[in-house]
Parts: sequence; C-alpha cells; structure tokens
Amino acid sequence: MSDRTSIPRPTIKRLSLYLREIESQEAGGAVTVSSRTLGSALGITDAQVRRDLGYFGQFGQPGIGYSVKAMIPRLKSILRIDREWNAAVVGVGNIGRALLHYPRFTAKGFNIVGAFDVEDSIIGTTVGNCRVARIEDIPRLAVELEIEFGILCVPKQVAQEVADLLVTAGVRGILNFTPQRLEVGPAIDVVSVDFSLALEQLAYQVSEEVDGG
Amino acid sequence: MSDRTSIPRPTIKRLSLYLREIESQEAGGAVTVSSRTLGSALGITDAQVRRDLGYFGQFGQPGIGYSVKAMIPRLKSILRIDREWNAAVVGVGNIGRALLHYPRFTAKGFNIVGAFDVEDSIIGTTVGNCRVARIEDIPRLAVELEIEFGILCVPKQVAQEVADLLVTAGVRGILNFTPQRLEVGPAIDVVSVDFSLALEQLAYQVSEEVDGG
Repeated sequence: MSDRTSIPRPTIKRLSLYLREIESQEAGGAVTVSSRTLGSALGITDAQVRRDLGYFGQFGQPGIGYSVKAMIPRLKSILRIDREWNAAVVGVGNIGRALLHYPRFTAKGFNIVGAFDVEDSIIGTTVGNCRVARIEDIPRLAVELEIEFGILCVPKQVAQEVADLLVTAGVRGILNFTPQRLEVGPAIDVVSVDFSLALEQLAYQVSEEVDGG
Repeated sequence: MSDRTSIPRPTIKRLSLYLREIESQEAGGAVTVSSRTLGSALGITDAQVRRDLGYFGQFGQPGIGYSVKAMIPRLKSILRIDREWNAAVVGVGNIGRALLHYPRFTAKGFNIVGAFDVEDSIIGTTVGNCRVARIEDIPRLAVELEIEFGILCVPKQVAQEVADLLVTAGVRGILNFTPQRLEVGPAIDVVSVDFSLALEQLAYQVSEEVDGG
C-alpha cells in the first residue's frame, strides 16, 4: 500500500511495460538491464525510467543497471499480479472467442474461468477451456467460480445492461471491449480497450518518420 | 511538423484520448470542455491536461474551457488522422475476424481494404467487407490496394516471416497482435497490442480501491 501512495497513473502503466521488457531480457539471459535499454524499448528517456522506478526504492546501480532477479517479483507485487485473478468472457462473438483462446492471459496469471452468451447455438459448446453458459447464470456462477473480472464483448446496445448484471453479481472490475461508455458505481473499475487507438498511434508514428520529427 | 517538435510520446498518446472525450462531449451537445473534465476522464490532473494541450497553442479560455469545434480538427491534424489510411488484416483467425468486423476503424478513418490467410478453406471467402486473398498475393495487392498498414494476426511462429513480407511489399507500419517481438528496419513502425496489459491495469486499479490508495 505504501508502495503506491501518490504514484502517477502513467508511471503505473509503464510498470507493466518495464516488466515485459525485463522478462524479455531475462529470457535472453540478461542479469541486469539498464535504464537506457528500458527507455529505448518504451520510447522514453532513461531519466524518465529512473524517475519511475525511483518511486519504489533503489534497485539500480550506476554503471551496472537494474537487477533482473530483483525487479521482476518487485514489479509484480506493485502491480498486484503476484497472485492469480479469475475472469469471465461475456459475449462469445469474434472478440470473445479470440480472448477465450488468448494464450497470454494464463501466462500472466489471469484465469479465464467462465464464458457467457445468449445464443442457444453457442450455449453449452466449449470455447478455449470454457463451456459457454447462459448470461442469466452469471449471478450464480460468478459466486461459484469466484469471478473477479468480467470481460465485456457483447453488442453495444446491451453493454450497459450486461455490465449492471456483472456488477450486481459482485465482479470487481470490467474489461470493456464494447464502444459503450459504461456507468458503474464507484466501487467498480472499468478499463476500456479500443483497437482504433492503436492504429492512431501507428498513424502518428509513421507520419513522424516522414516529417523527420 | 513544427507542431510536434519535442513533444513527449505520452502526451501524444493522451491526445487520442482527449479527442475521444471531446467527441463524446460534442455528441452530448457540449460547446466547450474544461481541463478538469478531460483530466477526470483520463484519470490525470487538470494541470497535466493544460500542459499537454499547451504544446499546441492556446485553445482554452480560463473559466470557459476548450472550444469543442476548434479542438476536434486541430487534434486530428496533429495526430495525422485528418486523412484516411488503408490497412490489411493478415491472418483471418479469431482476432483477425474480429478486426475485420470492427466498426470503429472506418469511423476513425482506417479502411480495411484487404485480408490475407494461408488456409484454402478461408481464401476466397468474404469476411467483413474483404474477400480473403492468399498471403503470397500480398506483394501484388499491397501496391494495387495501396495498403499502408499491416494488421498482423498470424500465429507467433510465422509472425516475423509475414512481417518481412509486409515490409518488402512496402507497408509503412505494422499493428502487431502476435506475442512475437518483430525485427523490422528503422523505416517501419510497429505498435504492439497485448490484451493482458489491459487486465494488468484493471488488477492494479481494483487493488488500489481495496488498499484505499
């Protein structure tokens, strides 16, 4: 808890990316990683890296870098991913299906324990590791399967209604793949995913090259 | 070009989010939007909003806010999305299929003009608005369809190989949905999408509530 008092949100977002990079360096056999390497991987300055990591105490040694072995568990603890989380996919269309087969979730400690839909032709089938249940079963199964996160992949028109159902069922957070802006109580967190943002970032970066910026 | 000299990358990322929020405010009938509203939508301080937008000149008026009508075209111009971009989906599996049906791309000026796969059962079928072509046809169709971005949704094992093919075919950027880290020349930009990052952010936010942080 004391770890995170007054830490800027952008720093927190970067911690996930630092962790990815450090894990990737570890896979390549590195023992230490420099702020320059981390900064270059994220497209930021090494001063910013040192400032970000400085919030959490002194890991780095000048001229040597950050210890990979020390950093990985520390970052996971700060990000609260030193534990597993249970999530369910709601809406087994194209995106839901892709997420039910997404290999990285399990690797990162996210267990997809449930899948829900309204279509009779889909209910009862197995997608990924989940047998698809009825949306009406969310309240019962949320408790039974200890679902903490709902991954919302339903059509926009029913997004709010299904989000309400998830909240009532006791989930703590919603990963929102719909374009609907969700109204939830203050106790629930929502993170929205919008693929067009990634394309916008690409458009900017590509133009930057051309402009010589 | 002068717009963007020495503008921090995180600021640029936030511009897309400001634009989303301002468009959403406009849809709700707003004429101006305050830095407080923008900050609150993004979970950052209003001082940070003013600093970010300050890079691009003075739009805001104290006590009145930013003009919605002025901001939208200006942000689009800075982000280089005041034009259309052509993109192709490579790999028509679950994620590829989801992206070929993703309604927001067109709305944001990204035209999905091509789809490519290796499976005979998929080639020749229509997914979204695209007839799926063979991966070997990328060089020819990239020129013919003026494909600028490749959206890479192939299995990890062939990701680099297909990325090389896209680069040779002349695309300017790759949106990478695979877990493979791509090696491309300095003239090509890559933006990677990792769904587990979004879940990590949710895990952090949810824990923050509990910790009272």
